[in-house]
Amino acid sequence: MRILTVLFLLLTLNISLAQENEDAFFIKKIYNSTLTDRMSYEWLRTLTLEIGPRLSGSHQAAAAVEYTYQVMDSLGLDSVWLQPVEVPHWHRGEPEIVKIVNSPSRGDITLNALSLGNSIGTGPAGLTAEVIEVHSLDEVNDLGPKVKGKIVFYNRPMDPTLLRTFSAYGGAVDQRGAGAIRAAENGAIATIVRSMGSNIDEVPHTGGMYYKAGVIQIPALAISTLDAELLSNLLKQEAVKLFIRNTSRMLKNKQSYNVIGEIKGSQYPEQIILVGGHLDSWDVGQGAHDDGAGCVHSLEVMRQLRKLNYQPKRTIRCVLFMNEENGLAGGIMYANESNRKGEFHLAAIESDAGGFTPKGFGCDAESNLIEDYFKKLKNWETLLGPYGITFSTGGGGADISRLKSQKGLLIGLRPDSQRYFDYHHTAEDTFDKVNQRELALGAAAMTSLVYLLDSYGL
Amino acid sequence: MRILTVLFLLLTLNISLAQENEDAFFIKKIYNSTLTDRMSYEWLRTLTLEIGPRLSGSHQAAAAVEYTYQVMDSLGLDSVWLQPVEVPHWHRGEPEIVKIVNSPSRGDITLNALSLGNSIGTGPAGLTAEVIEVHSLDEVNDLGPKVKGKIVFYNRPMDPTLLRTFSAYGGAVDQRGAGAIRAAENGAIATIVRSMGSNIDEVPHTGGMYYKAGVIQIPALAISTLDAELLSNLLKQEAVKLFIRNTSRMLKNKQSYNVIGEIKGSQYPEQIILVGGHLDSWDVGQGAHDDGAGCVHSLEVMRQLRKLNYQPKRTIRCVLFMNEENGLAGGIMYANESNRKGEFHLAAIESDAGGFTPKGFGCDAESNLIEDYFKKLKNWETLLGPYGITFSTGGGGADISRLKSQKGLLIGLRPDSQRYFDYHHTAEDTFDKVNQRELALGAAAMTSLVYLLDSYGL
Repeated sequence: MRILTVLFLLLTLNISLAQENEDAFFIKKIYNSTLTDRMSYEWLRTLTLEIGPRLSGSHQAAAAVEYTYQVMDSLGLDSVWLQPVEVPHWHRGEPEIVKIVNSPSRGDITLNALSLGNSIGTGPAGLTAEVIEVHSLDEVNDLGPKVKGKIVFYNRPMDPTLLRTFSAYGGAVDQRGAGAIRAAENGAIATIVRSMGSNIDEVPHTGGMYYKAGVIQIPALAISTLDAELLSNLLKQEAVKLFIRNTSRMLKNKQSYNVIGEIKGSQYPEQIILVGGHLDSWDVGQGAHDDGAGCVHSLEVMRQLRKLNYQPKRTIRCVLFMNEENGLAGGIMYANESNRKGEFHLAAIESDAGGFTPKGFGCDAESNLIEDYFKKLKNWETLLGPYGITFSTGGGGADISRLKSQKGLLIGLRPDSQRYFDYHHTAEDTFDKVNQRELALGAAAMTSLVYLLDSYGL
Repeated sequence: MRILTVLFLLLTLNISLAQENEDAFFIKKIYNSTLTDRMSYEWLRTLTLEIGPRLSGSHQAAAAVEYTYQVMDSLGLDSVWLQPVEVPHWHRGEPEIVKIVNSPSRGDITLNALSLGNSIGTGPAGLTAEVIEVHSLDEVNDLGPKVKGKIVFYNRPMDPTLLRTFSAYGGAVDQRGAGAIRAAENGAIATIVRSMGSNIDEVPHTGGMYYKAGVIQIPALAISTLDAELLSNLLKQEAVKLFIRNTSRMLKNKQSYNVIGEIKGSQYPEQIILVGGHLDSWDVGQGAHDDGAGCVHSLEVMRQLRKLNYQPKRTIRCVLFMNEENGLAGGIMYANESNRKGEFHLAAIESDAGGFTPKGFGCDAESNLIEDYFKKLKNWETLLGPYGITFSTGGGGADISRLKSQKGLLIGLRPDSQRYFDYHHTAEDTFDKVNQRELALGAAAMTSLVYLLDSYGL
């Protein structure tokens, strides 16, 4: 008996080692194939240089839907379709003016500024008022009546000592998103915010801001980090007045689409593994890292599976979401429809953190499930560790966040984050900032994870 | 007795845990201080944008010696000095011409080319000959008399499937370095080589090539990877003639310097921990990643130690080497002088792989020592792992390689390597390609390792 047990164990061990070797071999094939192949880079070139920025409701967003539908249709998937989504259509208007006026020491100084997405405009006449600097939303409440009639200037920087720049962004972005509401509640007439950028430079960063029903809407703009420093220094010496003019406005909603394609699973077609990014971008730059990279990553996963003649057991679905930047209409529509049909997403992987060298995946799930799921993922580090891929908790992505209640795993690709907030939401987010090999490595990491999820489930 | 043993063990454990906490705390201080501080980035700006490319023997190389001496002198070190080094002085001459001539199908096509460093010129008249494509040095020998009177075209690409691009470079660079010797031995009259670049683009990469006593010297140039593909495709259809003209030549040797500064150790001053990079660069671009980044990394280590009021037990020495690119005169001189004085370098850390996000250190030592040293380093991954730093074997750096016989540890900083060979030895190696946070992280990793080496020795 004892010998039989030993033999059985040896056999099991052999099988599991053989399986591990087979997995390692297939993952190596994925990497080799992705790294010798430039198609995803060429797709990104078209999306950024030929189509350009793709704000929801814009002609370019429509062109991106059409182009990526055609690409998906060329991949030999089992089905490709468009999912209708109604999206907001915000318009930046004329170039913004933000100007320090009549400074006793400096005269007039024009600052580098961009309206925040969804912001109303000042109207063609613009407005002039005294500036008051704050470092948090709470400080506005503390100041209370002192902000009345003024322009509130939010100037808390992203913390440079945090290694993941996304954490620093998370620690500062409330000023951009909710700053106008808080300022208006206390009687301010406009807000400007220090750009959410890692660098100290002249580049203003736009991004979403929101209004609240029942609170008066006031214009909200971002200024560059260098100008924020300049303004803050000047405020230490003297009272400062700003002139602001922007003509941004919200137009009527538009019809748009999520672009979807899938390979049907051969054994468990009802278990869906999703890969995705978002098609829309801000209206400045070219939406290269945010999130052209995520779109071509996801398309490349599908292409590599086909190219390597891989027949998945589970359904692999690629979703390019519309309107992540200023409304999340695509993500919400997708989840609502999926829930209505009673679908189950075993896992959803979003790439929305740029096309840089991947360092791993961040994972999220319902609290009673995450521990078990995470253990499983950690085991795969033996296979993915050689490619610099590790798993951490926390993450996912905005577009897939509403799928959490389906009790699957939400996963976000985590590329190296040091450069991301130099480009994010700026005119600098262009094709030339994306490196072909770094981009390919992201797609290879996602394809490898899809392969493991498909092979073993959770 | 048993209780005493337990108490002793607990006490020891506590002390070691307390020490580990203290180390973690100091390393966190190093990272915080380096990440909130932009000085090394500003030094690099001066070195690249104000001084520019710094080929050995050039005025800019002299200016770089003077500038970095002044910087080092401002850091409050115990001593700063110049070590004289005689260096070769190669001159590129007029812009190179490499042209496909009289192609039946394509007519004349001008290719993007650069002379390789140390190459002779064709003379003002240039030369025209038939091209023969090869993929290795051995193939030239196999062809033998068939290459006589021809231009040998080395076209073996860097292997894109290798994750570390330095490995791919190592697998291809023999064509550039020794290609002219092998071709001349078989009667060829010139060589061109496919650029050592990861990307398929228009950018030619220069780099060192060498002649051999007794073998006739022939001109050697690099063409862009895209032009190499073009030429190779054309050669599949027809015989191709190239016209080559370059006026490169070696001038008289020049006097130059290694720039050195140190903080004397308080307990073991005879044990030296070296940090360094090389001051010289190629004459195209600005020598930003290669190796301005390594120079300011090394300077920043010294500055942070002083800024954090750290008094080292061992001697910490910063060496900015001259002439790494086309002769290694600085590295050889430094090692010879060090050996002559009977110095002992406990460890030498070179940064010569760019200013990208650091992923770890590669380590080398004499074969009977490396295993023990490596074990020690691996223990420090507990402290450095949270910053993405791991240790691997193999590495070091060209400038420090001659110190190996002192039986210490040779260490090379290993940044993410995906972008390096897009810029390496090209006009694209400019300041704007360096990210401030990525650069700072490299300096922080080096400073942390210096702290651990100084605290614990080997």
